[in-house]
Amino acid sequence: MSVPAVIPFKPKNPKSRLSCVLESHEREMFAEMMLSDVIAAVREGGCEPCILSTEPYSFGDVPVFASAAGLNEALNSYLAGKDSPTLIIMADLPLATGEAVERLTSPGTDMAIVPGRGGGTNAIYLSRGSRFRVDYYGASFLKHAKIARDRGLSCRIIDSFRLHTDVDEKEDLVELLIHGRGKSREYLESLGFSLSIEKGRVGVVRER
Amino acid sequence: MSVPAVIPFKPKNPKSRLSCVLESHEREMFAEMMLSDVIAAVREGGCEPCILSTEPYSFGDVPVFASAAGLNEALNSYLAGKDSPTLIIMADLPLATGEAVERLTSPGTDMAIVPGRGGGTNAIYLSRGSRFRVDYYGASFLKHAKIARDRGLSCRIIDSFRLHTDVDEKEDLVELLIHGRGKSREYLESLGFSLSIEKGRVGVVRER
Repeated sequence: MSVPAVIPFKPKNPKSRLSCVLESHEREMFAEMMLSDVIAAVREGGCEPCILSTEPYSFGDVPVFASAAGLNEALNSYLAGKDSPTLIIMADLPLATGEAVERLTSPGTDMAIVPGRGGGTNAIYLSRGSRFRVDYYGASFLKHAKIARDRGLSCRIIDSFRLHTDVDEKEDLVELLIHGRGKSREYLESLGFSLSIEKGRVGVVRER
Repeated sequence: MSVPAVIPFKPKNPKSRLSCVLESHEREMFAEMMLSDVIAAVREGGCEPCILSTEPYSFGDVPVFASAAGLNEALNSYLAGKDSPTLIIMADLPLATGEAVERLTSPGTDMAIVPGRGGGTNAIYLSRGSRFRVDYYGASFLKHAKIARDRGLSCRIIDSFRLHTDVDEKEDLVELLIHGRGKSREYLESLGFSLSIEKGRVGVVRER
């Protein structure tokens, strides 16, 4: 039986820190393309995706649960009833691959965490969902590591830059244009984005 | 026979982008502590470190080659004579672990590359050094991938955030304070650095 992978998603006004380079409707489309890349990776890694959305939303044949509750509340009430393996993975990880997801979901421990850049948590695998509770925002990686210790759960930190790289800011688009293989990279390129190199530093430019 | 690991190092005025938070002598010490962490990881990963320094330098019992030539020139003349496996790994990867180095040096391909954040190259493993030439600076990851293709070398991209995270700027210190286990983290803490959380964003502060 494949592991369910819950992907929290915000369809309206997502990725506000990209406002400097993307219009509002482009940010919505870009967020959806990243979600699509994550769904593909999750499936390739042998998991069954479902979307936890902040509002009514549909995405092909992927089940969507809409919840107006905060991220932590929504996830913790979901986890409370789960005695089987569960994956929680963020929607802004367009470099994710099936291989990386497989490493994450076969840790040989009670759980596994992928730290995000800047102290966040990009993914959590739980061999038994109900034994854990999430606490996102701020330095959530440290909070999650502590919750694991406090509950006596063995925890592996997954060493993957593909799952570590969450796309929030303009600089992160460099990583996507270099390492992306999916729809979100294609979408960026269709908007006229490409790499630029100035004084040895790599950035992105948009041709309009 | 263990694989030699060449670690390029600049003892004088290193890490200038950290000038905003570290004095000149502190940057030199910090660079040395990061080097020390990389040496420890390389040894743990079964390699034999040697330092390629921009000037005369000594570090315990680790062999040092000083060369006034540029990084590319110095490395390419080193590689030209190497018909055996070789690792080139940067000195500013204080999150490196023996486990990550082992993954890098057993790729099952002619070579392996670890991309750095922002298009750089943090490490290159070559099963036969003389078949490759390096081309650092700018988007060197793309250049190195192209050189591999042009020379018909099979190449694996190593998916590791520990080797992907090079420490250049103040924001990178967050990663070190969260994930570091070695001397450079200890050194930062001895200088009064700690994590700060403001409006949900994680940064570093220094208490003087």
